[in-house]
Amino acid sequence: MRQKIGRSRPRNAFYAQSGGVSAVINASACGVIETVRKHKAVFGKLYAGRHGIIGALTEDLVDTGKESAAAIRALRHTPGGAFGSARYKLAGIDQNRAEYTRLIEVFKAHDIGYFFYNGGNDSMDTAHKVSEIGRILGYPLTCIGVPKTVDNDLPITDCCPGFGSAAKYVAVATREAALDVASMARTSTKVFVLEVMGRHAGWIAAAAGLAGSVAGDAPQVILFPEIAFQADKFLAKVKSSVERYGYCVVVVSEGVRDAGGKFLAEAGTKDAFGHAQLGGVGPLVAEMTRSALGYKFHWAVADYLQRSARHIASAVDVEQAYAVGRAAVEFAVAGKNAVLPVIVRKSEKPYRWTIGEAPLAAIANKEKKVPRNFISADGFGITAACRRYLSPLIGGEDHPPYRDGLPEYTRMRGIAVPRKLKKPFVI
Amino acid sequence: MRQKIGRSRPRNAFYAQSGGVSAVINASACGVIETVRKHKAVFGKLYAGRHGIIGALTEDLVDTGKESAAAIRALRHTPGGAFGSARYKLAGIDQNRAEYTRLIEVFKAHDIGYFFYNGGNDSMDTAHKVSEIGRILGYPLTCIGVPKTVDNDLPITDCCPGFGSAAKYVAVATREAALDVASMARTSTKVFVLEVMGRHAGWIAAAAGLAGSVAGDAPQVILFPEIAFQADKFLAKVKSSVERYGYCVVVVSEGVRDAGGKFLAEAGTKDAFGHAQLGGVGPLVAEMTRSALGYKFHWAVADYLQRSARHIASAVDVEQAYAVGRAAVEFAVAGKNAVLPVIVRKSEKPYRWTIGEAPLAAIANKEKKVPRNFISADGFGITAACRRYLSPLIGGEDHPPYRDGLPEYTRMRGIAVPRKLKKPFVI
Repeated sequence: MRQKIGRSRPRNAFYAQSGGVSAVINASACGVIETVRKHKAVFGKLYAGRHGIIGALTEDLVDTGKESAAAIRALRHTPGGAFGSARYKLAGIDQNRAEYTRLIEVFKAHDIGYFFYNGGNDSMDTAHKVSEIGRILGYPLTCIGVPKTVDNDLPITDCCPGFGSAAKYVAVATREAALDVASMARTSTKVFVLEVMGRHAGWIAAAAGLAGSVAGDAPQVILFPEIAFQADKFLAKVKSSVERYGYCVVVVSEGVRDAGGKFLAEAGTKDAFGHAQLGGVGPLVAEMTRSALGYKFHWAVADYLQRSARHIASAVDVEQAYAVGRAAVEFAVAGKNAVLPVIVRKSEKPYRWTIGEAPLAAIANKEKKVPRNFISADGFGITAACRRYLSPLIGGEDHPPYRDGLPEYTRMRGIAVPRKLKKPFVI
Repeated sequence: MRQKIGRSRPRNAFYAQSGGVSAVINASACGVIETVRKHKAVFGKLYAGRHGIIGALTEDLVDTGKESAAAIRALRHTPGGAFGSARYKLAGIDQNRAEYTRLIEVFKAHDIGYFFYNGGNDSMDTAHKVSEIGRILGYPLTCIGVPKTVDNDLPITDCCPGFGSAAKYVAVATREAALDVASMARTSTKVFVLEVMGRHAGWIAAAAGLAGSVAGDAPQVILFPEIAFQADKFLAKVKSSVERYGYCVVVVSEGVRDAGGKFLAEAGTKDAFGHAQLGGVGPLVAEMTRSALGYKFHWAVADYLQRSARHIASAVDVEQAYAVGRAAVEFAVAGKNAVLPVIVRKSEKPYRWTIGEAPLAAIANKEKKVPRNFISADGFGITAACRRYLSPLIGGEDHPPYRDGLPEYTRMRGIAVPRKLKKPFVI
């Protein structure tokens, strides 16, 4: 097909997933791929990076054109990262220019003119740097971010795709486990502790607060990273809850710190971004209630379950994840660059939202914590304002299809794009 | 209404929940209550023991007649124990006759002629003892068990109500988390460990095996209580899985023991039945893979979440839980005593089952473990025979109703029956 006058020729596009995956990051992939397929005058092929940016650096590309429409549609209900993700942060351009020039080499070799990067704040930083290097090296590249993080800690956007489903999982699990411990408390378990994710921001922990509806309902205690942990106050709260209601449900964020700013439980290792790898604060605070108060306890650590539980995804979240994928492509078609789509809340009751736009530079490396007015005065619960904010985000169910009692998730064929560069790149 | 000739006058009934609760024990309660309500010529009132047998001992009874039909119907989709459960095992009649005579006093005071006891093997032992004491003391009492246990370790019955839903939860969680770790493995987590329940029998761990369908699918390693743990073999299996598939999902039963029969992780406390309280074997085996193989890991402990997750209940399990409740009442109506309904498998493909009958004495205190031919030769997986057995038990979805994004579970009004005895009973 000949190009229309005034329209540049179609160029290939690159899409990659980055950082921790979620129950709906593939819904964003679905939005990107389906929308790219609708704009044949703008886009040639769409290549996905295998394992995120590493796929670009090592020229390990998947030809999404070889995936059927049905398989791409099924991404909408499949958790995890269908093309593989990576925790790999590009250094500053000054520190490791080789990585950036390599990226541009790969893009040039495959005629890639569009870079769609699906991730959180670290990843928006990467996308921003890539957009700059294209400019510096004189290689025309459109860079668009696709926001994603279960932590809900990106600034500007009202919420982050991935969060609503993790929030719904945690609220549902809390409500269900609370009914269990309430049944057992007379002769057995009095304290149940659920440890949830959220390294620096307590959004997921806050979502557990949705499980209850009247005073006294579980969770009676939420431990936020935003509130310095004080053992005496915590134990007093647990004690009063057990004495009043017979039991106590505690939801603790992995990121809880003491007054000195030290994580309560630190595994001692760091991930590729230099963050401490956490885990184990749940059993730690549970054991505190036994040693100080003599209560029998149980504890659960949700870990990956909370961010992969597509079976209990929020319908709102799935829709938003798809919408930011679609909007990212539409931004590119409209000639925008170095931006990402964000969620804008238009009204609370009824909940209405739309897609807005923000520069990558405004999102990169920034964190939005739970504001103090969303946390109750005693520091152990959520306020009505917080509930108004969170509640719509877990709205609606989007059950995946089931077969033989299990959700039927898709797998990509993952056909590799033939390499064009002779030089391998070692990570 | 006057009694028909040849028919004894209606007498009241007692129902209680015992031991660890499940996602569907209330479906059994629903079956009991709805069926009692249909037999007005046989049953007067139906009292529920608050916190199981303790409710009977302390004359703490709930009048189920004060609950609306809609509330009782909603029990079918509500997890936990609606009337409270208890871990409280009656001693032998010789050791603590006072408890048994107290029970009969309470039953006599409230004209209770039917005793429905909903629990696992320990509880069937209690029901059996109660049936004997009634006979010994000359108090006419019909004792019927209602089977329940997420552990699936009761003999005779093909499966146990409560298990299918826990099994489905674990299979779904394993499938979902596996997609997550597979996405992350290139640069980050290579080993994911999920700890599940099952003190002596590995049925729940086995159910995780349903998550995969072809060789290499997660979980690549299942650790059963039935197979003595050998660290070297375990680590070799994890290593080969990571090298072959890029990652490894391990599902470990809380009840895994070493060759000497010692639990790998023992919290050091015991529950009311004298069983060791377990927890923490998940992080323990995860840490092994790091120290021995250098792999980055994540771990989750499902704990109460797996047995309270009514939102992902098996439709087959819900139906069977209701059916054993209904059948228990029908047995009583038919004049049976000291028995319980069991599940009989009639065919595998298509799965068909019916209700059978077994004596309480045959179930009490016995445990059914996972047979060796259900575990693969290397001890780390399930066989085709195991899959054929397990697969139908997680069949079908029975989504609860949702409101504002959360399952809408019911609560009983819990109106107490006025006490008639002067003497309190101290537990």
